[in-house]
Amino acid sequence: MKPSLSIFREVLYRLPPTIARLQHEAVNPDATLSVNGFIKSIRRQKRVSFAVLSDGSHAQGIQAVFLDTSLTDGLTNGTSVRLTGKIKDSPGQKQDRELLVDGVEILGGCDPEIYPIQKQALSTEYLRENMHLRARTDNVSAMLRLRSRLMHSVMNYFNTQGFYFTHTPILTGNDAEGAGESFRLAQFADPQPDRPNETSEFFGHPAHLTVSSQLHLEALASGLSRVYTLSPCFRAERSQTNRHLAEFWMLEAEWMDVNREGVQGICGLVEDSVKSYASDVIGGQDVEVLWKDVEEVRRKTLVDSLSKTWARMTYGDAIKALQDAKNVKFEFEPRWGRTLQSEHEKWLSETFVGGPLFITDYPGNLKPFYMRANEDGETVGCFDLIVPYVGELVGGSVREGRVDILESKMRKDGLGLGKHEYGWYADLRRYGGSPHVGFGMGFERLVAWLGGIDNVRECVPMPRWASKMLL
Amino acid sequence: MKPSLSIFREVLYRLPPTIARLQHEAVNPDATLSVNGFIKSIRRQKRVSFAVLSDGSHAQGIQAVFLDTSLTDGLTNGTSVRLTGKIKDSPGQKQDRELLVDGVEILGGCDPEIYPIQKQALSTEYLRENMHLRARTDNVSAMLRLRSRLMHSVMNYFNTQGFYFTHTPILTGNDAEGAGESFRLAQFADPQPDRPNETSEFFGHPAHLTVSSQLHLEALASGLSRVYTLSPCFRAERSQTNRHLAEFWMLEAEWMDVNREGVQGICGLVEDSVKSYASDVIGGQDVEVLWKDVEEVRRKTLVDSLSKTWARMTYGDAIKALQDAKNVKFEFEPRWGRTLQSEHEKWLSETFVGGPLFITDYPGNLKPFYMRANEDGETVGCFDLIVPYVGELVGGSVREGRVDILESKMRKDGLGLGKHEYGWYADLRRYGGSPHVGFGMGFERLVAWLGGIDNVRECVPMPRWASKMLL
Repeated sequence: MKPSLSIFREVLYRLPPTIARLQHEAVNPDATLSVNGFIKSIRRQKRVSFAVLSDGSHAQGIQAVFLDTSLTDGLTNGTSVRLTGKIKDSPGQKQDRELLVDGVEILGGCDPEIYPIQKQALSTEYLRENMHLRARTDNVSAMLRLRSRLMHSVMNYFNTQGFYFTHTPILTGNDAEGAGESFRLAQFADPQPDRPNETSEFFGHPAHLTVSSQLHLEALASGLSRVYTLSPCFRAERSQTNRHLAEFWMLEAEWMDVNREGVQGICGLVEDSVKSYASDVIGGQDVEVLWKDVEEVRRKTLVDSLSKTWARMTYGDAIKALQDAKNVKFEFEPRWGRTLQSEHEKWLSETFVGGPLFITDYPGNLKPFYMRANEDGETVGCFDLIVPYVGELVGGSVREGRVDILESKMRKDGLGLGKHEYGWYADLRRYGGSPHVGFGMGFERLVAWLGGIDNVRECVPMPRWASKMLL
Repeated sequence: MKPSLSIFREVLYRLPPTIARLQHEAVNPDATLSVNGFIKSIRRQKRVSFAVLSDGSHAQGIQAVFLDTSLTDGLTNGTSVRLTGKIKDSPGQKQDRELLVDGVEILGGCDPEIYPIQKQALSTEYLRENMHLRARTDNVSAMLRLRSRLMHSVMNYFNTQGFYFTHTPILTGNDAEGAGESFRLAQFADPQPDRPNETSEFFGHPAHLTVSSQLHLEALASGLSRVYTLSPCFRAERSQTNRHLAEFWMLEAEWMDVNREGVQGICGLVEDSVKSYASDVIGGQDVEVLWKDVEEVRRKTLVDSLSKTWARMTYGDAIKALQDAKNVKFEFEPRWGRTLQSEHEKWLSETFVGGPLFITDYPGNLKPFYMRANEDGETVGCFDLIVPYVGELVGGSVREGRVDILESKMRKDGLGLGKHEYGWYADLRRYGGSPHVGFGMGFERLVAWLGGIDNVRECVPMPRWASKMLL
């Protein structure tokens, strides 16, 4: 029997309703319809049986009620089914609606003895090993939906601010600005005999995977003024922390600083935008699922931060605060001119200010060549945004616009100024350059912070890190 | 003087208005404000001078009027400026509004003798060589805005249909399903001496750049039911056609086929979605710029196709039509069991049906292992969408859900069935699989079709192809 879809706007919807739509939209309680999904759990009683059916569209799925208990024959966890019946308001406390089932079709069986996604709690490590199936678990599917919603939030925010979404290249001749952490493409074994002029490099010269879209975004900003991207980036780092992936996604934006607000202007836009993403998702069902087992203090710190102005301090003041800190012993002594360690950032954001913290104007020798030198001759116009329990979420800067200063820094870093090296980057200042600024935000870290997730490996569908690449 | 922004909603906008906003939104004609941009052209007369100011936010920019002509001293094409003045309705025919300038600040000069973006028409090849500056030209900036708008259209469409946006991995152990066109990462020269167990492969085994997100999307669809992505894909193809890039972006979607509509259902969603993107952008200023010099027949074919149902025919019928074709001499003889050549696709869509054409049910031996075998034992449940003047825009299929048939095809193709080879892909059928379908669309080809652009190299910000990778 063909299910009735007349309760939905047929013009708008090409596909039958998902469970999310059945839970949230107007339904006709007398219409018979079919719902597809997989069995999350099943409870058989004498006179009535219950199953939770999920299609991954909604954190709770929908409760299926079987007044004819024989209909549940052959149903086990993980089985894919097509259930036909009527949607009713649920008399139960735990769910709003349920499906009163009068027909069952098994689409794909699932042997309960060997199904890797058992009902009991499964360790994070076990689920990583079963990466192809982990999207069926509550937490991973909630994270995936959260990512999707955040992607929409990001695009809405930047569109409203007059930015254009762009796709910067993944393969580039740039080698991570000399930082030495980039992946390189393998050469091809043999040039084709019929094309002797081709080298074994596909592009004629070495190709690297991008470590950041920034330089390319600056080229596009010279034409479009406000651009952003959410792009994969790659770092061949061996460090095995809970904040690093070999392949990750970065939100990067670059724009003309019309009113010359400098670093403070970037911080303003970043704070405004992150609060906007947070307010789009906090309180939603997916975030509720993810926060279920997280300590209350983390959640409270996050929620409180959304209604207050975030702290800002210079690197110099941060060093002073660390040096004056009582009752805390740092492994690394905080001293002007040295990198802030994770322990320092953690203390500053979690203890000292108790919320997100912008640290600005780092010494130039700690930062890349493209950041604008401040008048003091020592620091550069930049910031890191540190958030509690995650650490660095965003980094950004005013870009050096003075071509002579830029080129001298590039020479010092050993970056070639030829047209096919980094000369094009200096060119952007030579032909009608304009003061501009930008930032990069690790998208997995945003997901980690808003979702209360400890490890960025659980913030991306299929994580890759040193020695680990499944699927 | 600080410009007045009070005419805009200050809460919503973090940044000063772009030219697009000044052209489209309510403005106070008595407010003085500042606009940043670069000079596109300048015309000096005795009593009044005019310049076109662009910030890339709007196809036409804005006309700046200088009643005090001395204000234009030092202004040349490409110079970045901050102009202060009042927005007025224009008495001219060609623009709606203009900026009556009373203050000029030069932000970045531009030597007109050496500026690569001269006013006269510049060849496509020349602009490719000056890729870092080409976003300042009318056509490239219109293409970039079109891409951004299409990205929004795509996300709106799939969100409405209950799909979640996902980020599938770029690095993968899969080697293009044996097709041999994938890029591989280089090994690292030396394993670290202090970590003797690490091989020179960063991930412990070879890593390739993805050629398609499909297999990974299927894993995510097994949990979320409806997923899509717009992801970079890579093909190490040496062919130098106007339809191929080594790095390109592909829109791929995968979903549970709830009502078992099969190939016809996929075609329905694809047609509906592409018409929806087209109706979002056709008639807009950016598309107008891009279509300026394109033959009228191409535009008419495109616009006409949006209000009619697109043709569908089987591969078998397509072969018959080609064999029966009068007054046309094909280089390759059309014969059942052979690949359709570009010349065949071109004739079928441009001459035979005069619009987009779905060709369905190709012989299985021409298509990959994952497509579902039809009952006839020869063909598979798949389609290609051919559009006039571009060729193949979309390809998709019903996925083989019968694990025994799938595994036997995989063995035949020499694909390993171990857990860390392609075994995980077969697993998706083993544990509660469900009939599902999907497609992939080359995003640059969509831009080419809707923008009337001949070569996909002009459909992406920074194209890469064999022997060519600038920036």
